[in-house]
Amino acid sequence: MSTLNAVELIRKKRDGGALASAEIDWLVAAYTRDEVPDYQMAAFLMAVVWRGMTPPETVTLTRAMAHSGEHLRLHERITPVADKHSTGGVGDKATLVVAPLVAARGLPVAKMSGRGLGHTGGTVDKLEAIPGMRMDLGGEAFLALLLRHGLALAAQSSALAPADGKMYALRDVTATIDSIPLIAASIMSKKLAIGPSHLLLDVKVGSGAFLKTRREARRLAETMVRIGEDAGVRTVAALSSMEQPLGRAVGNALEVAEAVAVLRGEGPEDVTELCLHETALLLAMAGVAADEADGHERAARAIASGEGLAKLEEVVAAQGGDATRISDPARLPRAPWRELVKAPAAGYIAGIDAERVGHVAVHLGAGRLRNGDAINHAVGLVLLAKVGDHLEAGQPLVEIHARSEAEAASARAPLLAAYRWSEAPVSASPLLLGSVSRETLSGDGVLGDGVSGDGDA
Amino acid sequence: MSTLNAVELIRKKRDGGALASAEIDWLVAAYTRDEVPDYQMAAFLMAVVWRGMTPPETVTLTRAMAHSGEHLRLHERITPVADKHSTGGVGDKATLVVAPLVAARGLPVAKMSGRGLGHTGGTVDKLEAIPGMRMDLGGEAFLALLLRHGLALAAQSSALAPADGKMYALRDVTATIDSIPLIAASIMSKKLAIGPSHLLLDVKVGSGAFLKTRREARRLAETMVRIGEDAGVRTVAALSSMEQPLGRAVGNALEVAEAVAVLRGEGPEDVTELCLHETALLLAMAGVAADEADGHERAARAIASGEGLAKLEEVVAAQGGDATRISDPARLPRAPWRELVKAPAAGYIAGIDAERVGHVAVHLGAGRLRNGDAINHAVGLVLLAKVGDHLEAGQPLVEIHARSEAEAASARAPLLAAYRWSEAPVSASPLLLGSVSRETLSGDGVLGDGVSGDGDA
Repeated sequence: MSTLNAVELIRKKRDGGALASAEIDWLVAAYTRDEVPDYQMAAFLMAVVWRGMTPPETVTLTRAMAHSGEHLRLHERITPVADKHSTGGVGDKATLVVAPLVAARGLPVAKMSGRGLGHTGGTVDKLEAIPGMRMDLGGEAFLALLLRHGLALAAQSSALAPADGKMYALRDVTATIDSIPLIAASIMSKKLAIGPSHLLLDVKVGSGAFLKTRREARRLAETMVRIGEDAGVRTVAALSSMEQPLGRAVGNALEVAEAVAVLRGEGPEDVTELCLHETALLLAMAGVAADEADGHERAARAIASGEGLAKLEEVVAAQGGDATRISDPARLPRAPWRELVKAPAAGYIAGIDAERVGHVAVHLGAGRLRNGDAINHAVGLVLLAKVGDHLEAGQPLVEIHARSEAEAASARAPLLAAYRWSEAPVSASPLLLGSVSRETLSGDGVLGDGVSGDGDA
Repeated sequence: MSTLNAVELIRKKRDGGALASAEIDWLVAAYTRDEVPDYQMAAFLMAVVWRGMTPPETVTLTRAMAHSGEHLRLHERITPVADKHSTGGVGDKATLVVAPLVAARGLPVAKMSGRGLGHTGGTVDKLEAIPGMRMDLGGEAFLALLLRHGLALAAQSSALAPADGKMYALRDVTATIDSIPLIAASIMSKKLAIGPSHLLLDVKVGSGAFLKTRREARRLAETMVRIGEDAGVRTVAALSSMEQPLGRAVGNALEVAEAVAVLRGEGPEDVTELCLHETALLLAMAGVAADEADGHERAARAIASGEGLAKLEEVVAAQGGDATRISDPARLPRAPWRELVKAPAAGYIAGIDAERVGHVAVHLGAGRLRNGDAINHAVGLVLLAKVGDHLEAGQPLVEIHARSEAEAASARAPLLAAYRWSEAPVSASPLLLGSVSRETLSGDGVLGDGVSGDGDA
């Protein structure tokens, strides 16, 4: 019976049809209960990569996945309560800055994060670079922290949206990751299971991001905003460039140190710009700020006054972490071997391939290639120059932080291969690429066939 | 390792690429050995339904499937040796006529058949309506029969092309049946594993066939001819209409009786026409006849002389069957309940939906909905009028042969629903729709995305 139904639903999607809500609900529930086997879900997922999903189908899929496990319903316990999510980039430590800034300005932030996989890092891994920091909190502890400190930073619980966990693992081994509706449903199902009142999504676009083109990124942003708003979550998606790594630090402790620098007003320009922008958007959408410009001003004041940094120290201490590592980042884990890579010739940096840089960091031990791999919190890279900078031959380009001289040596060639050089001056492409909210949503339509193969519009 | 490779191959096909021969060989072999799991093969198959396969890919896939198990290499033991295959229709008993006619004219016929599934019947089921008939022969017994009688009729051995058996079962539950290259590879892998020197394919097209349009049927025919010729098998594919059931009888014993009638020169015109045509094509392609017209004449003589019927009796007896049921078909199994369905009003028959008629026969017990279902050899339908015939209200339309009055009663309404009527005269569409051989093959190209959704050209 279940086989019969599943075949009919696969066929319907294969032939370009739209599934009814009851059909999607049944499929997700039956798959979660192991009543629909992996092979039928795999065929269905490939048909979705091919045919896409309509906005109503995607909304229903997301809700079905969100309802497949526990529901925190945060907004019923505390309102407003904000969440912030990045689709993943290299050197993206913005959550470590934006969450305390927003919380410091009076808007509670409930942030559940994933661990890093592939070439992009995860917020949980970064925070675990702080000795003692507990990230695996239960739902009640998470809520208690939130009520007391206005900020809680935890690892995503596997009890939330288990259908997503199961489907993501299957997509990973069946080449069915690359689908806008499936990506949107995966991200948003976890958000809906948590249940914030306000959600800011940072959709990364560019060579170092999952989505390579602005057209794809905008479609994902629109899809996620649609899903969030349909579920009663005020949702804004900001697009930002991942053509080169964000900031200078790539690697867990190195990124925590850079986040602290931003909270002190001493961070790299690009990360600071992104964090102020995201903070402003969240404060404005929740009505804590009058508008985005007011939000920007409030964010800047939270940096200048030290309130943002104090909030991060407060929540780190509350979660068992050694807050003195925040006040003195030099005491964060340090790699035993450090060496400089120098510019091979004089020129302007025309490009830094973020994905390659991410892979070098993973191979140094900063990330994992497979779920469950152990990582090293101290290793990583510090980019001493960014796109547009001019260097003379022999000037410092990157600082490698490695476990050994040998590992550092093996990183040099792939690292240098990530750089493009120009004799003529180059200016970096803009970081902020606009945003999508319910006010800017375009009309309905099928939400995307497969991601790959789409050119930029 | 195998997982990694499979994902790469799925992704390559998903993105519209063509797999290398070594990649296809590896995938089929690893899947047959259970080293690639069903869920990865399911995703790959859906990607093939989407993207199609190039002619070289399809040829390689077929050969890999043919090499996944035993290889009979018949043509190395006896040359020439012919095979004949129909893609499946309702009331298609042509094999029971063509095989003995061809063998009677001196061209050995080695025929391995499947059992019926869905609304179309299988030759094995039909022959098993003859008491004592053994269809599950080993390879050596099959060859011995062939050498002695010039004809052997057996059930397909599961040791031949086991990759096809495994892939077909998976396609059946993942809605990945409808793909020209996959259909062609499934049919031809079994043929190549048997290894005839000459192969005639009857590709059915129309509402009662798997392929609904001539464009699809021609693409399948071309693909199969290409695969056969590439493997050194002289292959001709004849297209024939399945807009209405073939002949008058639908059901196992009823179809055997009709085949005997054709061999006696007393069969319905359409089956006789198709059988003479197919016999002529086979005799001509093997050089037993000078050309098709000569083949047609030889086929007609084998009917007039009774040699065709004698050959069928001979091989039935050799396979343990009661040949007196062939000489006196009234002694074949008879259903206990028979009743006439009468024309509901006066008019011309404008259409008889073969698929609906097939489903009625299956529900009477003549076929199976699932592999392994038991069937009843006696039940079925005799269509007393065909498309173009004019009937007055109350004249006999169909004779139902059922296990009980109740089952016959429940067949009446769906049976009548299969008929379309016209007040104006109607002529049946042509039965023979042309053929494809190596001389008529068109140029290369991608062999078809999914079957469904394609309009007729």
